[in-house]
Amino acid sequence: MGKKILVVGGVAGGASAAARLRRLDEKANIVLFEKGPHISFANCGLPYHIGDEIKERDALLLHTPETFKARLDVDVRVNSMVSEINPKENKVKVINFDGESYEESYDELILSPGAKPMRPPIPGIDNKNIFTLRNINDMDKIKNYIISNHVKSAVVVGGGFIGVEMAENLHSLKVETSLVEAAPHVLTPFDMDMIPMIEDEIKSRGINLYVNNPVSSFEGDGKSLNVTLKNGEKIETQLVILSIGVTPDTGFIKNSGIELGPRGHIVVDDSLRTNFSNIYAVGDAIEVKDYVDESKTAIPLAGPANKQGRMAADNIYGDDKKYKGSLGSSIIKVFDLTCARTGNTEFALKKKGIEYHKALLYPQSHASYYPGAMPMALKVLFGKDGKLLGAQAVGYEGVAKRIDVIATSMKYKGTVHDLTELELCYAPPFSSAKDPVNMAGYVGENILKGKTDIVSPEDIDNIPDSAVLLDVRTDLERENGYLKDSIHIPVDSLRENLHKLPKDKEIWVYCQIGLRGYIGERILKQNGFKVKNITGGYKFYRGVNV
Amino acid sequence: MGKKILVVGGVAGGASAAARLRRLDEKANIVLFEKGPHISFANCGLPYHIGDEIKERDALLLHTPETFKARLDVDVRVNSMVSEINPKENKVKVINFDGESYEESYDELILSPGAKPMRPPIPGIDNKNIFTLRNINDMDKIKNYIISNHVKSAVVVGGGFIGVEMAENLHSLKVETSLVEAAPHVLTPFDMDMIPMIEDEIKSRGINLYVNNPVSSFEGDGKSLNVTLKNGEKIETQLVILSIGVTPDTGFIKNSGIELGPRGHIVVDDSLRTNFSNIYAVGDAIEVKDYVDESKTAIPLAGPANKQGRMAADNIYGDDKKYKGSLGSSIIKVFDLTCARTGNTEFALKKKGIEYHKALLYPQSHASYYPGAMPMALKVLFGKDGKLLGAQAVGYEGVAKRIDVIATSMKYKGTVHDLTELELCYAPPFSSAKDPVNMAGYVGENILKGKTDIVSPEDIDNIPDSAVLLDVRTDLERENGYLKDSIHIPVDSLRENLHKLPKDKEIWVYCQIGLRGYIGERILKQNGFKVKNITGGYKFYRGVNV
Ligand SMILES: Cc1cc2nc3c(=O)[nH]c(=O)nc-3n(C[C@H](O)[C@H](O)[C@H](O)COP(=O)(O)OP(=O)(O)OC[C@H]3O[C@@H](n4cnc5c(N)ncnc54)[C@H](O)[C@@H]3O)c2cc1C
Ligand SMILES: Cc1cc2nc3c(=O)[nH]c(=O)nc-3n(C[C@H](O)[C@H](O)[C@H](O)COP(=O)(O)OP(=O)(O)OC[C@H]3O[C@@H](n4cnc5c(N)ncnc54)[C@H](O)[C@@H]3O)c2cc1C
Ligand SMILES: CC(C)(COP(=O)(O)OP(=O)(O)OC[C@H]1O[C@@H](n2cnc3c(N)ncnc32)[C@H](O)[C@@H]1OP(=O)(O)O)[C@@H](O)C(=O)NCCC(=O)NCCS
Ligand SMILES: CC(C)(COP(=O)(O)OP(=O)(O)OC[C@H]1O[C@@H](n2cnc3c(N)ncnc32)[C@H](O)[C@@H]1OP(=O)(O)O)[C@@H](O)C(=O)NCCC(=O)NCCS
Repeated sequence: MGKKILVVGGVAGGASAAARLRRLDEKANIVLFEKGPHISFANCGLPYHIGDEIKERDALLLHTPETFKARLDVDVRVNSMVSEINPKENKVKVINFDGESYEESYDELILSPGAKPMRPPIPGIDNKNIFTLRNINDMDKIKNYIISNHVKSAVVVGGGFIGVEMAENLHSLKVETSLVEAAPHVLTPFDMDMIPMIEDEIKSRGINLYVNNPVSSFEGDGKSLNVTLKNGEKIETQLVILSIGVTPDTGFIKNSGIELGPRGHIVVDDSLRTNFSNIYAVGDAIEVKDYVDESKTAIPLAGPANKQGRMAADNIYGDDKKYKGSLGSSIIKVFDLTCARTGNTEFALKKKGIEYHKALLYPQSHASYYPGAMPMALKVLFGKDGKLLGAQAVGYEGVAKRIDVIATSMKYKGTVHDLTELELCYAPPFSSAKDPVNMAGYVGENILKGKTDIVSPEDIDNIPDSAVLLDVRTDLERENGYLKDSIHIPVDSLRENLHKLPKDKEIWVYCQIGLRGYIGERILKQNGFKVKNITGGYKFYRGVNV
Repeated sequence: MGKKILVVGGVAGGASAAARLRRLDEKANIVLFEKGPHISFANCGLPYHIGDEIKERDALLLHTPETFKARLDVDVRVNSMVSEINPKENKVKVINFDGESYEESYDELILSPGAKPMRPPIPGIDNKNIFTLRNINDMDKIKNYIISNHVKSAVVVGGGFIGVEMAENLHSLKVETSLVEAAPHVLTPFDMDMIPMIEDEIKSRGINLYVNNPVSSFEGDGKSLNVTLKNGEKIETQLVILSIGVTPDTGFIKNSGIELGPRGHIVVDDSLRTNFSNIYAVGDAIEVKDYVDESKTAIPLAGPANKQGRMAADNIYGDDKKYKGSLGSSIIKVFDLTCARTGNTEFALKKKGIEYHKALLYPQSHASYYPGAMPMALKVLFGKDGKLLGAQAVGYEGVAKRIDVIATSMKYKGTVHDLTELELCYAPPFSSAKDPVNMAGYVGENILKGKTDIVSPEDIDNIPDSAVLLDVRTDLERENGYLKDSIHIPVDSLRENLHKLPKDKEIWVYCQIGLRGYIGERILKQNGFKVKNITGGYKFYRGVNV
């Protein structure tokens, strides 16, 4: 008989670990405990079944206990909660569906209990029409409630990834949907400059969006519910989805002696081992290193959970794999938009006191002369040494690709200089000869080498008195709006009009997105003017001020 | 007055260099020579304007001499051929449209003359209905000829990227199209195992495909043309597009003392300098290093040309940028299919005598439970040390992304182990928690660590007598076809049926694509059987044998 290995949690991290364990060792005795009735379900698909985008409920069950047994010979025990761990005796206590409890010993233990939705003590939070979404049961409850109550209105509280997905899916069901967010904008893994496109998309579909507006209370009878916001507004609704974040589901570990972090995450070393050498932990429940700056963080995402699960299994079998940290690469479809990001945001970098530069672009998804090209907002953050710190993109086609390429560069501790050298696939339907990622590298390099001095659109409203604004766009563009008090000289006639500009004042040049502004800047700088280019240009200025 | 810099060639490499030069130095005297009437045109879009996919001809002209002058103050001289270079005297000789010639001196010279279509001495090659496609004039000629002669049939000779694009675009115009290729398959930058999907797509649209069948002669009067193939077949047609490859357009350099390679490419060092320190060369006309193994090669692609153009400009201004080599990352749309590749093919590795392994997969573009997921064939080639050597993918959505991610890893000299660690963006509409690229890493790692021993589908027909075939697919799959003489035991009942298998023979296990084959292999191996998994499975076997 081989090792006896217990796995706690039967979904992303746990099931991945169990599957790999079996492939590594046909003789091991592997037991998988899952407190719910299902294993190996697609958490990430839950909102889309509610919205009928994924029609078949069963499509979400990648494995049942039976198929998992048949394929991988794992002893799957659903409705079985591990309630205590005794590392000294290498035992866990299990409570099953009937309330019976028993002990199970182990040689090795892998914990992947995940994270559960937060339920803060807001007055009225216990109202039965307030739902959270973590698993198949939650999904069934919400879906049944919507159908049997002919739900026509819903409020989603929390504009993170799950909240926005739920708002979209409720909207697909023709439910009048409000989305309420306490922070200044939805999707806080993105910075403010990426947000206008996203919030416009949400609002344009008819979703009522409230930002900067935490819920202060819920009040209701059985049928309808009043959601009161901090600013006093009240929204009457039939259904509330609460999705304001998750917290590690580690209550059962508290008294075990296994080290937990300040917010309840399991502390592991680079090998994914806890403070007990035969106990591993993976997934949403653990603390990880930020891959960029090695600070402690927690990244509740499926990719890391799956990879860590497999890695823990490998390490149990003598491999010496190191989990080097997470970038938080993530992506969300918001109706027709795609929003993707990796690494740190500006917001996070500021909070950590890390100095950074940014390249802000608005490139086309593919060659503009080939049909169907769509613009995307693309931002790349990097340090004074050029090292990539983070990136965000919002657009349509090709957004995921660019962020995945940058995340790949970041894995190798790449720089903006490296981005200029990437040799990516090009044909007109797919990209440009200088891919947007190359272009971001060029812009970054120009910043580092002092070829350009940029200011951000946010800075325009605080432009110093000693500076003047120069609009280098075409007449037509200017007719459609311009920055107050700006001088107008199209870039293509700038060289003949240098005499119209002051040499003693700083000139802030701008165009629609920053490219012609940069060309104007180069012309002026080399003619002895003091110049800055407004990165992102009029487009991002309008964006961030909407 | 600043430096005087001449640039020869006004398109991808040349125009990029000139534009960057100006941004670096507002005072330089920059002259751009182009022997044709157009500069800065989108070579890559030419086939699509012929096929009416790109409606506006002018969309292909990214700059005219006038706009280039206005924006970048470059002295653009079209219809001006540089006919001689005299490096000793730092002068070029120019012949203009009227046949007048003059000399122009330079401080620095950048050569980007590109490559021209090959016209081998096949009997009848000078027939006036045989066209090649390099520039706007060629495109106009082809398009006018098609329209004015109501062309109903065409033969494209050469099944490379341009040939396949032309075949698709002629087909869009409802022209009966034949595609003739001398090699055993079209698109030789891809290996044979990727080809069936591609050739099926081409044939399914009604294009007549001839492979392994070089043209032996053309015969014709003014109106119609007979194309005779090596196997004796004759195709009667109104129009021939010849696209069998390109050769550097460096005739004018031959007597200059500038070093040329054996096939006429300009030899440059890592700084893109020729053997004369103030003469740089870039683009299709130069010899480059293969980025993977540093062997000499030539990569006629727009991405490298554009990047090299900018780099040469930077180096003239004191930067010390090194061009580290090309991967040949490239991509083509073949009707609904996307085909992308980077680095070396198996074919090339074999030729170079480089040992390699391969991971062959057939993953879904995104989570299979989310609507619209499509399969792709994905192959990753790597060395015994795990180092990535090349990759190819054929499918629909998400193909470009995976190859770009692998090309990015290759830029950093990454390994298959690195692929397992990439943290790519995941949500159900975009990928899987273990992205296909991660999965390729897993498969690769299993090969390197001896967890799996694979054979290729090509090997099946030469299976040794001492081996037996084991089909671990479901009953249903088997009903739809199976390998002759294979034993059938579905993977999920393999453990109960070990007694049916011989311990003294090698077992070649297979499933549909290789995943369940691998699981079967793991079960059997650890039960003392000698096993190999047929990578790619029945799917690729059928594919490569079509
Ligand atoms: C609605 C939704 C959408 C999501 N969308 C995405 C997405 O698009 N992209 C993405 O990357 N991530 C997404 N995620 C996050 C992703 O699902 C998680 O990161 C991932 O599932 C974490 O894996 P895990 O194994 O740590 O935890 P889980 O998958 O949550 O599994 C933990 C399991 O352990 C069980 N368990 C807990 N405690 C015990 C105990 N004491 N005894 C027995 N069993 C126990 C739980 O019941 C649970 O089933 C989404 C999550 C949700 C809820
Ligand atoms: C139909 C077609 C489709 C393509 N599709 C793709 C694609 O999808 N993806 C991709 O990556 N690449 C593609 N390419 C290749 C890409 O266009 C080239 O790699 C790129 O243009 C090379 O740039 P270059 O500057 O070296 O040469 P070119 O762009 O060819 O420019 C060279 C210029 O120099 C001029 N010239 C030559 N000699 C002289 C002289 N003595 N004096 C003055 N002028 C001179 C020529 O007239 C020419 O205009 C395609 C090419 C063609 C023809
Ligand atoms: C599905 C689940 C049980 C994992 O099971 P799994 O068997 O490891 O996963 P897969 O079916 O993807 O197979 C991966 C294995 O197949 C192998 N493989 C994949 N394609 C292959 C191919 N073409 N040839 C050979 N092997 C292949 C991989 O190498 C890997 O094996 P390894 O880990 O031993 O190296 C687990 O991920 C799960 O429960 N997922 C659902 C929950 C979840 O992830 N939620 C969040 C996202 S919605
Ligand atoms: C278009 C062409 C003339 C190059 O001109 P270019 O001005 O260098 O190219 P772009 O318009 O793409 O601009 C790139 C510049 O803008 C800058 N830029 C791009 N976006 C920017 C932004 N948002 N903010 C600031 N600067 C930006 C880049 O940094 C780069 O400048 P740099 O080289 O000084 O760093 C040349 O590539 C060409 O002729 N192309 C057509 C031929 C061809 O490529 N054929 C093959 C493919 S079809």
